[in-house]
Amino acid sequence: MDFKTLESQPIGTRVSLDELIRQMRWNEDGLIPAIAQQHDNGQVLMMAWMNAAALQETLTTGQVCYWSRSRQTYWRKGESSGNRQRLVGARLDCDGDTLLLQVDQQGPACHTLRPNCFYIELDAEQGRIITDPVADH
Amino acid sequence: MDFKTLESQPIGTRVSLDELIRQMRWNEDGLIPAIAQQHDNGQVLMMAWMNAAALQETLTTGQVCYWSRSRQTYWRKGESSGNRQRLVGARLDCDGDTLLLQVDQQGPACHTLRPNCFYIELDAEQGRIITDPVADH
Repeated sequence: MDFKTLESQPIGTRVSLDELIRQMRWNEDGLIPAIAQQHDNGQVLMMAWMNAAALQETLTTGQVCYWSRSRQTYWRKGESSGNRQRLVGARLDCDGDTLLLQVDQQGPACHTLRPNCFYIELDAEQGRIITDPVADH
Repeated sequence: MDFKTLESQPIGTRVSLDELIRQMRWNEDGLIPAIAQQHDNGQVLMMAWMNAAALQETLTTGQVCYWSRSRQTYWRKGESSGNRQRLVGARLDCDGDTLLLQVDQQGPACHTLRPNCFYIELDAEQGRIITDPVADH
């Protein structure tokens, strides 16, 4: 069932993960953007990328695994830093090209040790730093 | 100032928008992903793409303007549907390759007339439709 057909189906309609993965709009590198959101307070933590195997691993293990474009390898979030993301829920969007992960983040999500990656506030003239690294990390 | 330098600067540090736009990591098509989040309840509504001019227009006018990859033109959200996004705040992430827009969404954000685009819940075996289109739209 393609995404156009799916959008008119009723609540509760199910499609196998294998079929969704076939239909999803992976980019030319076989990747899809995944937004991580803290499940209880709604804070958007970061955005990174997944390939199909990273998505399957994440859904199976309940620990978020991305694909690192810079290192060209799996990136099991927190594996070296300890700042893991436990998966609480995962959702796919209407045209199958973006994932939303609801997670429980341990420690700061950002490599700068800020709680989340979005620390530069923009207006029409400038950007301004709005958060500090977590002090006691 | 590059993003590596910026991350160790104190709260309140300012950089001109022009400089940030030069430093941002636009993809090979000159685009960057922009996550739209409802400002008051934290709901992640959608993700779309912006080029530099769309970002500047959004920050200047306070109405969100994306770049449509399928139509290859500016996409002033809600221009035809009426389901506009008023910009409440905009943030750039630590490595300058993702935007987070806090918006006030009028009507459903999704082209399927659902409140947001993330209507397929995933688990390790399947996807399941979890929201209906807005009935009274």
